[in-house]
Amino acid sequence: MDAQLNNRQWLYRRHPEGLVGPEHYELVTMPLATALSAGEVLVEARYWSVDPYMRINQSLKPTYNELPHALDTVQTAGVVGRVLASSVPGLTEGDWVEGMLGWQTHARVHHSVLRRLDPALAPPSTAIGVLGMPGRTAWFGLMESGAPKAGEVVVVSGAAGAVGSLVAQFALKNGCRVLGIAGGAAKCEWLRSRLGLTWAVDYKAHADTASLAEEIKALTGGVDVYFDNVGGWITDAVIPLINRRARIVICGAISQYSGGLDTPELGPRFLHHMLYQRATIQGMLARDYLHRMDEMLRVVGPMLQRGEIVFEETVVKGFENLPATLQSLFTSDHRGKLIVAAE
Amino acid sequence: MDAQLNNRQWLYRRHPEGLVGPEHYELVTMPLATALSAGEVLVEARYWSVDPYMRINQSLKPTYNELPHALDTVQTAGVVGRVLASSVPGLTEGDWVEGMLGWQTHARVHHSVLRRLDPALAPPSTAIGVLGMPGRTAWFGLMESGAPKAGEVVVVSGAAGAVGSLVAQFALKNGCRVLGIAGGAAKCEWLRSRLGLTWAVDYKAHADTASLAEEIKALTGGVDVYFDNVGGWITDAVIPLINRRARIVICGAISQYSGGLDTPELGPRFLHHMLYQRATIQGMLARDYLHRMDEMLRVVGPMLQRGEIVFEETVVKGFENLPATLQSLFTSDHRGKLIVAAE
Repeated sequence: MDAQLNNRQWLYRRHPEGLVGPEHYELVTMPLATALSAGEVLVEARYWSVDPYMRINQSLKPTYNELPHALDTVQTAGVVGRVLASSVPGLTEGDWVEGMLGWQTHARVHHSVLRRLDPALAPPSTAIGVLGMPGRTAWFGLMESGAPKAGEVVVVSGAAGAVGSLVAQFALKNGCRVLGIAGGAAKCEWLRSRLGLTWAVDYKAHADTASLAEEIKALTGGVDVYFDNVGGWITDAVIPLINRRARIVICGAISQYSGGLDTPELGPRFLHHMLYQRATIQGMLARDYLHRMDEMLRVVGPMLQRGEIVFEETVVKGFENLPATLQSLFTSDHRGKLIVAAE
Repeated sequence: MDAQLNNRQWLYRRHPEGLVGPEHYELVTMPLATALSAGEVLVEARYWSVDPYMRINQSLKPTYNELPHALDTVQTAGVVGRVLASSVPGLTEGDWVEGMLGWQTHARVHHSVLRRLDPALAPPSTAIGVLGMPGRTAWFGLMESGAPKAGEVVVVSGAAGAVGSLVAQFALKNGCRVLGIAGGAAKCEWLRSRLGLTWAVDYKAHADTASLAEEIKALTGGVDVYFDNVGGWITDAVIPLINRRARIVICGAISQYSGGLDTPELGPRFLHHMLYQRATIQGMLARDYLHRMDEMLRVVGPMLQRGEIVFEETVVKGFENLPATLQSLFTSDHRGKLIVAAE
């Protein structure tokens, strides 16, 4: 092995005021010494994650982190890769691993930050999808904060997305009637026919909150669990429809990420509905359940192997497309988990 | 006893668009037959309650009740009175009782809707205050939904009111540091010197949300429990100050009652803060804890007898002043529980 290799990296260079995109990043090539210290592993990245939380971390105000993502550093990201060289017995060349290695083609890291993957159990890319952070978010967000009961109505915003599409399916498996909200007729058709949702509503077919609310009300009668990935006017439509003791899970607010976290939008006040229905709003983050990953994998892993869960991946090829693919999270029509793959 | 007496009643006649007041009520005198059927009791009212929830029940939209308070009927209200005549062994003439008897001078009701009071334990008027609905709201709202821990910061809006002043004191007894928000320097001085609050903030001394938030932040550093009676711009100031795993209890939103329930105001979106802090918003109503009244009385009753709780009452004399006194809930400077007493 060479003493060093060329490591391509996407550096986060500029704070976006609105939509994030390639202009906020710079692609650089840096030498990476490949000699391993005790405990280290050299990894070649094969799949990089793009996730909405990345834009939260670019907000200038305190978020769940005290400080925003540091400028001039490699974009933080979940990565699936293969071991090129290892100094530890538990990992050998060719092994698949997952870790927070960032948007770079290679990483030399301590083995403790890597999770070894078994490609016989599930495709390795699922480690940043259904069997990774998005799956954990969906599982614990729904089951712990949403606490769905058979027969209840669960509404999911961003239902065609990485987390939403899993939440919707987990809710179905728990005996709930599930309404997915998504943008466009094609996504809604996919939600109904492929995922088996009870109802799917195309928010783009509605001109305003009242019209969207009317359709959801007509279909469901009322909402017991609202799993919210989107916020904004879609959430304005759902909240007045909650039933007694409803649980609203705030998993994301993607409609607000491109500027609204720094300068909040105005929306109609709604806290009186919480009072009327003695309802709960609970914010949740995947990180709170990191130490409980095994619980999720024990249940969801077998679901995957039995073919009971649709875990669609939208794969974009080419490391150089990472910033543009992150942007497309906020603008485009992907389904399921959005991933960038090495060529 | 006469076969009938003159019963004076305040009928709810007209829906208020904004502030409720005397123009929405009519005082009538109706004959009341005094002959008792088996199980009935005749009560003469001595204290009538005025409460913010009365205005919620006048909203034209569904609230926690499907329908608004019926027009042309006696205003629903908690009442403390004395037994004039009884057909049951457990109640005799002169006994003090409490029940939802409405804004009328007399009521002939089945004994099962009455709670017998022991005037040796506490002044009878407390049955519509600290030992009644407001006390129950404060106790269970704070202890169950707020779940305060010693050392935490509890912020209470409407802190000089019937519920808020009790919440603040219960939080102090639980070892919390307590900040009360109230309108006016006199109320704040009362909160500090008489109730012993750690801090009191006069929202009327602030021109905007940012300024109010700055003072609360400077005093507390951050908020673990926010017990909200008020909503609106005061709540806008507090929510961005919440700490990790904060609990926000929505007990009321009095700033929104005079029109905002029918046509919601706009305010800044804030659900991303729930995400950042993995915080909870829980709406609560006194009625959910009606069957647990004994738990509250067992703890709070002895606190009263030991003189550990300030339960200020603002008493207005004269049945004819009921609608104007209800109005003053939304406009004036009372402290503690607002009550109308018979002459």
